[in-house]
Amino acid sequence: MPQAHLLALDCGTSVLRAYLLGEGGAVLEERREPWGIMHLPEGGFIGALQAIAGDWRAATPGLGVIACGMVGSAQGWFEAPYVPCPAGRDALVSGLLARDAAPGLRIHIVPGVTRDGDRPDVMRGEETQVVGVLARAPELAAQARLVIPGTHSKWVQVRDGRILDLHTYMTGELFALLREHSILGRPARTAIAGPEEAAGQAFERGVAAVRERPGTGATELLFSTRTLVLKGQLKAIDSLEYLSGLLVGEELRCALAGPAPPNGSPLVLVGDAALCQRYLRAIALFGLDAMPPIEGASPAGLWQLAHQAGLCAGR
Amino acid sequence: MPQAHLLALDCGTSVLRAYLLGEGGAVLEERREPWGIMHLPEGGFIGALQAIAGDWRAATPGLGVIACGMVGSAQGWFEAPYVPCPAGRDALVSGLLARDAAPGLRIHIVPGVTRDGDRPDVMRGEETQVVGVLARAPELAAQARLVIPGTHSKWVQVRDGRILDLHTYMTGELFALLREHSILGRPARTAIAGPEEAAGQAFERGVAAVRERPGTGATELLFSTRTLVLKGQLKAIDSLEYLSGLLVGEELRCALAGPAPPNGSPLVLVGDAALCQRYLRAIALFGLDAMPPIEGASPAGLWQLAHQAGLCAGR
Repeated sequence: MPQAHLLALDCGTSVLRAYLLGEGGAVLEERREPWGIMHLPEGGFIGALQAIAGDWRAATPGLGVIACGMVGSAQGWFEAPYVPCPAGRDALVSGLLARDAAPGLRIHIVPGVTRDGDRPDVMRGEETQVVGVLARAPELAAQARLVIPGTHSKWVQVRDGRILDLHTYMTGELFALLREHSILGRPARTAIAGPEEAAGQAFERGVAAVRERPGTGATELLFSTRTLVLKGQLKAIDSLEYLSGLLVGEELRCALAGPAPPNGSPLVLVGDAALCQRYLRAIALFGLDAMPPIEGASPAGLWQLAHQAGLCAGR
Repeated sequence: MPQAHLLALDCGTSVLRAYLLGEGGAVLEERREPWGIMHLPEGGFIGALQAIAGDWRAATPGLGVIACGMVGSAQGWFEAPYVPCPAGRDALVSGLLARDAAPGLRIHIVPGVTRDGDRPDVMRGEETQVVGVLARAPELAAQARLVIPGTHSKWVQVRDGRILDLHTYMTGELFALLREHSILGRPARTAIAGPEEAAGQAFERGVAAVRERPGTGATELLFSTRTLVLKGQLKAIDSLEYLSGLLVGEELRCALAGPAPPNGSPLVLVGDAALCQRYLRAIALFGLDAMPPIEGASPAGLWQLAHQAGLCAGR
């Protein structure tokens, strides 16, 4: 095994990811556990850290530790105050919060980013992905529009290497709520899986339905997830894909409604590959292009921040 | 006790209401049980009918029985096929489905109403409320826009005494889902109730925020229910009222986005008094007038339909 230089943690709302990083930020090993910040095992965050990466620490005494995401929220381990927009890499490094968990275990927490106003917005974890994206694709630093889909999708405007603005859409959480708890989820919950092609068509039908109603959007259409099934115009098994199309379409409708960003501000998808593919299909239906999705942004960003802060061994 | 002429039932998704009606449709007695069509007591619908109104039937042998709402759905007792728009009182009476539950117990089920198209819509129960409204306020028969707020709010366009069109907004269900299961509901779930005035202001703030974004609406704003609390710009205890304002405002934004109905097509709220007051406040913030809400539409409509069908004793 090559020399380990950094232990990097990404603490999501539902998953804890740990990366053992080697020279230049190479991912030597990667682990994940279903330990969201509100669902940690015994011993809280430090117990989770030892459980997921105790052997890595034992094998490399003095290994630096950096963590981003919900670990720094008010409900997390230690609250790391938000850095305001526009926020670049230097501001994030300055905002790193160092806390000693035990003798010889100092953890550096990445601050989140906030944008003030009458509709303020915040993110924790995605700012690190942005840093990772800009390290992997430096040509985007001048200007880019990053889309990080998920439970709470984030749209991040980058300019001159800094996070200029951000907007959150609750698309993933809304879909999960409607699937699990609403009348719309009922038919598909009891149906048997159908062919993938039909599912893809149902998704695109949902996206197109929203796109055709630029002024109103998905609110007008949600109940059609049920009525189309009642009327035999949509198969029960495909209805959740249609619903997903409505919600992703609604996110695009709203995010794209504002003034178009300057020419040369490419749309870039970041994160989970399957989710990015879904968004790419929807973006194409809106008549737009997006760059190939960028994966592995989180460990890349953690490495960049830790490296600049002098936390990586052997640098 | 005056002579009973009709036993009328309104079967909602969460509540069963029973009315004992006298001459001219006067409500002699009214009862409600938390027996939604998917949560019926032992014995199913007929068991529920006997439990809620068995004594009324025993006291007046031969009492006619009429029922509207989910009893006629595919998940109900007997499916009563939908009547298509435009649907007037005659069509609803023709569509009454008579089924014998036991010797001497014939139940007449009111059909729902449907509107076809690429975004079809349906209702069950509200068509009966429309009949009741037009009986109580005959001047609305020429044309009116009825708003029946609830789990699934219905907007019904009436012309020449018939239901011309209908649209469903899942406002009430969305609010309940977000309150009970989402990250937005968490702060208010653990807070202590504050003064009513502040709650009213938070609601109006939510409505106004949507009205100020006519092109995009609540999708852009949902997450601000959380971030405003994080930033100290909204009290946790008021956050659900703000969320309610966003969702009711979104319903109005969409429903009012279409071409304005002809002059003289008044906006009329129907149903639960507290909910109607909430919608009235929101409608005023959109700069529109609405008539005073109409209550008791359901028993009035059940009486009208039963009377025309010859089901009422002593007529």
